[in-house]
Amino acid sequence: MTRRGFLLSAGTTTGAFALGAGVGVAANAAVALRADTAVGAATVNFYGAHQAGIETPFQAHGVFLGFDLKRDTTHVMARRMMELLTDDAARLAQGDPALPDNDPYLAEKPARLTATFGFGPGFFTKLGLSSQIPAGFADLPAYRIDKLVPEYSGSDLVISIGSDDPLTLAHAVRQLTRTARSFSSIRWSQKGFVRSQGVAPATQTNRNLFGQVDGTINPAPGTEAFAGQVWAEGSPSWFAGGTQLVLRRIAMNLDTWDKLDEGGKEISVGRKLSNGAPLTGVHEFDAADMEAKNSAGLSVIPDFAHMRRARTDNPKEKFLRRPLNYDDGILLDGTSNSGLLFAAYMANIQTQYLPVQQRLVDLDLLNTWTTPIGSAVYALPPGCLPGGFIGEGLLS
Amino acid sequence: MTRRGFLLSAGTTTGAFALGAGVGVAANAAVALRADTAVGAATVNFYGAHQAGIETPFQAHGVFLGFDLKRDTTHVMARRMMELLTDDAARLAQGDPALPDNDPYLAEKPARLTATFGFGPGFFTKLGLSSQIPAGFADLPAYRIDKLVPEYSGSDLVISIGSDDPLTLAHAVRQLTRTARSFSSIRWSQKGFVRSQGVAPATQTNRNLFGQVDGTINPAPGTEAFAGQVWAEGSPSWFAGGTQLVLRRIAMNLDTWDKLDEGGKEISVGRKLSNGAPLTGVHEFDAADMEAKNSAGLSVIPDFAHMRRARTDNPKEKFLRRPLNYDDGILLDGTSNSGLLFAAYMANIQTQYLPVQQRLVDLDLLNTWTTPIGSAVYALPPGCLPGGFIGEGLLS
Repeated sequence: MTRRGFLLSAGTTTGAFALGAGVGVAANAAVALRADTAVGAATVNFYGAHQAGIETPFQAHGVFLGFDLKRDTTHVMARRMMELLTDDAARLAQGDPALPDNDPYLAEKPARLTATFGFGPGFFTKLGLSSQIPAGFADLPAYRIDKLVPEYSGSDLVISIGSDDPLTLAHAVRQLTRTARSFSSIRWSQKGFVRSQGVAPATQTNRNLFGQVDGTINPAPGTEAFAGQVWAEGSPSWFAGGTQLVLRRIAMNLDTWDKLDEGGKEISVGRKLSNGAPLTGVHEFDAADMEAKNSAGLSVIPDFAHMRRARTDNPKEKFLRRPLNYDDGILLDGTSNSGLLFAAYMANIQTQYLPVQQRLVDLDLLNTWTTPIGSAVYALPPGCLPGGFIGEGLLS
Repeated sequence: MTRRGFLLSAGTTTGAFALGAGVGVAANAAVALRADTAVGAATVNFYGAHQAGIETPFQAHGVFLGFDLKRDTTHVMARRMMELLTDDAARLAQGDPALPDNDPYLAEKPARLTATFGFGPGFFTKLGLSSQIPAGFADLPAYRIDKLVPEYSGSDLVISIGSDDPLTLAHAVRQLTRTARSFSSIRWSQKGFVRSQGVAPATQTNRNLFGQVDGTINPAPGTEAFAGQVWAEGSPSWFAGGTQLVLRRIAMNLDTWDKLDEGGKEISVGRKLSNGAPLTGVHEFDAADMEAKNSAGLSVIPDFAHMRRARTDNPKEKFLRRPLNYDDGILLDGTSNSGLLFAAYMANIQTQYLPVQQRLVDLDLLNTWTTPIGSAVYALPPGCLPGGFIGEGLLS
């Protein structure tokens, strides 16, 4: 399909197709909203210096799968597992079925599918590779705010899969899980989402389930700042071009949060709910004035505000946030089982992440409504070229 | 935004925007895939002769919420509940916040949001309204194939919410749940999906997680056939323009299903996996030849094939299928917790649905890989006009 063809196709939508706010689609008309297939056909290149799915702009849907190596999985078998997983992921990213795949028709619409692989601390120790653990990579310390449950914590291997289509995603999860299960046992899966394609402008920062604009300070993909924060250099050498992932499952108490009014919500973060601007500014990307006082002489952005605690001018303490919302139904007490799959990527957990997390543990008003219930860390190898496999520098 | 504006907007996407199969988006480019906001701005009119969300073309995401009336909820309170829920739903469908809504910014992108309401058998009995139960409406009989669990079965009230955006949906679930919980207790929630907007052509029938094209025989919205199958006539009078919903949660064993090859999968249904055509035809909508034999003298569409068992020439046994896929992570044994939220709408469960279901219970090869684990029935009142409320004919 050519670009011109796409425009023509868009132009053939019926007159009932709502193109703007307030223009209603008749409830019972057989309206063709899915007038094009560009979302489904779009692909992300699997191969490259870095793994896909990290610098890739948010896909609408994502799943994190945690696996533990089986007791008898050797170094050679782990290598074989990563070769097979790489092959599956490269094929699925192009809209081709994995080998074998008895449901090939579910692979046809990649919708920017990516699969990204990472190794937990147990991967290194179980395989006798402790000497190859990247600099700064280790389990997080125990934090007093944490109420971790094993169902969402740790694992030897993580596969993070993203796509703009939930059916494609479900299929890819199944294919990659089948391959991984020959060498490992699945421990947990965690599913999340942001906005669907076509709902909000591409430049708009996501909102979380608290209604907050979330991700304003992220480095822009393709910039030096991004590379400096995210991609590791050569220590150890196999890890050059890789990154480290902190995955935290943060339960959000929407019931108590919604007892706050808009002003109460805003001071807990230090940003406006309407557009994410700092309380001292007007626009989302305005620099925050941490010295500003109100007429009563109090800080406009309070000491306890999340943004003051998380923020840093130290370039060595910055990192990429790529969180997904989760909403897994209803708990026994009738409240929603909702929150954030907080995924942060950085070259070095110890130097970049730990200082920020410690400040948030010490003081952050948002802790009132949030509880970390899962936590895990992974070393994500660099990308590979056709013929290679993810993790080849470690496992060859 | 005008239609012309939409096309111009689509035309401003960058050259890196993949418009066709096989054209890759560079993995690490900051590509604007969400080039327009038409999906988010689209609305479905809440008001009308029938409730929205039934004849509405599939939204990408849906949730069914089951509530039981509190012991002390009276007829007057049930009326008040439905007035408030109607008000919430009408506002949210336009992208306006419910009253009260402390997260109004999450309501801004309706993405064809609909909320549809239905009453279970307990709603009538608890409120002393048994004389108003619609013709043919009752709990399904116990079927030998069923392994029902209470967590997914029955309830006095159902709210079915659909939207093309998962964040909008999560927000609407929360708003409507908050209103309903003043009068009832939530019993379960079930979440499902089909393809995202823009993934497949609008005319394309959905696929389920077995990879099957599912829904070929549905009546087209807006036709006489649709109206005849779905909308009830006046018995009792309050129910004219309403419909009856059978909601079945059908677990699908993807592991054993995937042990079949393509031919094995096809004879279990009687249709081709590739495009849903009957095994005696070429195209999806070709009429099936139930008499056709192969060279060995056996039926091309076997006796045990799902389509032969479900199919009927009796117009009084047809109904609308509007199923969603569900994929709720991993069960303890490592298999996926997946299946179908089978939602069928018809004027009269007894005459239209029960004969078909009984045939499928008696013989259907698909039963080998599927297990109904939840079941519920609801009477869905007709729609209402501004100033009215859903259920007004019953509760006024």
